[in-house]
Formats: sequence, C-alpha cells, structure tokens
Amino acid sequence: MTSLPFKTDPKLDLVLERNIDVPVDLVWKAWTTPEHLKHWFCPKPWMVTECEIDLRPGGIFRSIMRGPEGQEFENIGCYLEVVPNKKLVFTDTLLPGYRPAANPFFTAYLLLDGNGERTRYTAVAMHGNEDARKKHEDMGFHDGWGTVVTQMVAFIKAGFKPT
Amino acid sequence: MTSLPFKTDPKLDLVLERNIDVPVDLVWKAWTTPEHLKHWFCPKPWMVTECEIDLRPGGIFRSIMRGPEGQEFENIGCYLEVVPNKKLVFTDTLLPGYRPAANPFFTAYLLLDGNGERTRYTAVAMHGNEDARKKHEDMGFHDGWGTVVTQMVAFIKAGFKPT
Repeated sequence: MTSLPFKTDPKLDLVLERNIDVPVDLVWKAWTTPEHLKHWFCPKPWMVTECEIDLRPGGIFRSIMRGPEGQEFENIGCYLEVVPNKKLVFTDTLLPGYRPAANPFFTAYLLLDGNGERTRYTAVAMHGNEDARKKHEDMGFHDGWGTVVTQMVAFIKAGFKPT
Repeated sequence: MTSLPFKTDPKLDLVLERNIDVPVDLVWKAWTTPEHLKHWFCPKPWMVTECEIDLRPGGIFRSIMRGPEGQEFENIGCYLEVVPNKKLVFTDTLLPGYRPAANPFFTAYLLLDGNGERTRYTAVAMHGNEDARKKHEDMGFHDGWGTVVTQMVAFIKAGFKPT
C-alpha cells in the first residue's frame, strides 16, 4: 500500500514510508528550519554543521555534513515545490535559481499526510538511471533515511531539543 | 539596460532582449499552445513536428524539430515556474515529474513585461559550465532565438496563422 500520488519506478526510485506519531505541522517545521534540521538530518555520529534554506521554488537548500573523522560533504540544490504540511520537492540537479548543477544525482519528494497526532511520512529519491539508484542504495538509503526519521521524531518529541 | 530580475553570469548565460509590438497575452498564448508553437518555435526551414505541453511545474514540455533533410531532434524537459503573461521557466535537466535527465544542458527563462500593444521580451539560457554555454552559442543561440521571435511576431500578427 502506497500513499504516493504518482507511480514510482522500482528500477530508478527509492521509497521510504513510515507512520509516525507526531503532528504534521511539527514535521514540516523540523524539515524547514535550519536550526532544527541540523539536529536530526544525518545519522549520528555524523552531524550537519551548516544548513541554508530559502523555502520557495528555486530557493537554496544547502547543508554540510561532517563525519566523526572530520570528513565533510556539501549538498547543494534548490526547492522545486513547497506546499506547507503536504509536499516538499527538492533536487541537486539544479542550483539555486535553477542553474544546472555539475554533479546531478537525484530529486527528492517528501510527502506528508497529517491525521491529528500522527503523520503518514513518505520520502522518495528519484534518479535518472539505475546506476545512480544503486549507488544511493549502497550509500545506505534505507537505513540512513529511516534512521533520520527516527532521530527527527525523537527531536520533535523532546520539544525541538537535541536528545 | 536589462529588465532581468536577477543577475546573469556572462560566462554561463546567454541573454536575448527584444521589444516587440504585440500584446503580452498573445505572446503567452503563442508560447503555451502546442498548435501555435509548432509554427514559429524553430528557424525555418526547420519545423516542429510534435509538441506536448502540460503547463504546470513538473509538467512536460516536449518538442520534435525536423530539419529539411529529415533529421530529427527531440527536446524533452519540464516546466519549473508558470506565471501567466509574466514568466515561464523550463529545463531539460529534469524530465516530467522532476526526474533527473540523462543529458542535462540548460534552463530557460522567458520573461515578459507587457505594456499595451507592446511587450518587453527577454529570454535567458542558463548553463552549468562554460562549455555548455559555448556549445549553445555555437549552435546559433543569438541568431536562432532571435529568428524565432521574429517568426512568432509575424505569426501573431497574421492572427495565429502560418505566414
């Protein structure tokens, strides 16, 4: 059973679906506030050291992830669709202002369906070819994206304080 | 003097600006109606044999251009922003539904500023690197994009009939 409003392609897409016991507006807040996102967006002991959000189509979404040995990765892209409490689409194939990026990799859909204190949470990573999907899977998509949802829920339940 | 709402990069972008003597709503109609677009969108004797438009962010923008010797090129991408009579942004770096494309090349901005019977017409082709910009320039960006504006104006003035 999927809540997706479009058909995914198992050869090209990775999908994570969860039912979580936090209200949808808090999930939206956790995803769209740099100071909040830093606390849950990558699996510990990795951490997000910088985060920049300009929440509109074409606006920047940038983060720097730092590993336990000091290695750093920058992710930069832009938002494509912003529908509060419902849908957030962003991609690294386009830089802010929609300029084509040097190393395009994926587009992500975050789809939220709130129901009181609970939220149906669906994340889709959409790739252009099977190699990119496999690379993302090998990087630990399912564990990684699942872990950060758990981290996010704990962070929200702690009143947006690090746990 | 530019009417652009953002700063372009001369190393990466190509810009065409024209003042044309047709009303902005007709320019919008010419750009967003497949049956109209076919008649002016590539420099004659090349022609557009197929055109598909789903005028919303993430919706398809596809055309097939055919040369005088029967050679065909398909362009496929999606719209990013749709603001009637003002702004149309599309890219070939993303397929419909925002899936990353195999051969990303550019993002285009069409910016319109209507004033009665006249329109300030600005087209920007935005690239990810200097090679892509140069390739587009060598393909004849300035002549080609300029020629099709002239064709479009003639087509509009003829009451949306081929001239």
